[in-house]
Amino acid sequence: MTQAAATPDTTASHPLIESNRVEGTPVYDPHSKRIGTIHHLVIEKVSGRVVYAVMSFGGFLGIGSHTHTIPWEKLTYDTQLGGYRTDITQEQLTGAPVFSGDERVWWDRRREEDIHDHWKVPPYWGW
Amino acid sequence: MTQAAATPDTTASHPLIESNRVEGTPVYDPHSKRIGTIHHLVIEKVSGRVVYAVMSFGGFLGIGSHTHTIPWEKLTYDTQLGGYRTDITQEQLTGAPVFSGDERVWWDRRREEDIHDHWKVPPYWGW
Repeated sequence: MTQAAATPDTTASHPLIESNRVEGTPVYDPHSKRIGTIHHLVIEKVSGRVVYAVMSFGGFLGIGSHTHTIPWEKLTYDTQLGGYRTDITQEQLTGAPVFSGDERVWWDRRREEDIHDHWKVPPYWGW
Repeated sequence: MTQAAATPDTTASHPLIESNRVEGTPVYDPHSKRIGTIHHLVIEKVSGRVVYAVMSFGGFLGIGSHTHTIPWEKLTYDTQLGGYRTDITQEQLTGAPVFSGDERVWWDRRREEDIHDHWKVPPYWGW
């Protein structure tokens, strides 16, 4: 019940990650099979809220892999696994919207609507 | 009133940034003087919420600069400036908690309490 004793548990339940180290965090399916990793996150500048995870699937060390932009709500952090769980399936990925070119300029509300439509996640700008 | 006409304005008011590109976003004082840049963000893994900005002050291209960990609430994104505004002062920085060593392991609730005490920002874990 002392402060010293309580601190480690509290910290463990609120893990923090630095944005420049987020790359490579594993993502697991409901059966705890590793299906990919976080490539990077997409953050709304004003609110400081993570709205998308750009995930890498397949390949080895980034070679031969492909990325998909997934709404943040599809991921749940599991402190035991040390990664995120998701219920997305291979079938869902096959038909998912794909973006290419310079990622810095592709943010466009209509493209974002495509993502949210596909993943059946309410748009974050409507919250 | 069409969807096409509404999209650009909506997008402009909700700018997104990728976590691997956040480095270097400028930070301005209340008089629009550039005082530093975002070095990286610290994100709570479970909620996907940005809780701290690690800011670089001084120096040139990172040489001779120093960093401070600032509660996210001290920053407000200004879409006109293309950066964050803050009311933190040089005097406040002088006495602010400083962390060194491997940043991956320093997260500790008591050290975080020092940050929030210093910056007079309620702790995010109490929300």
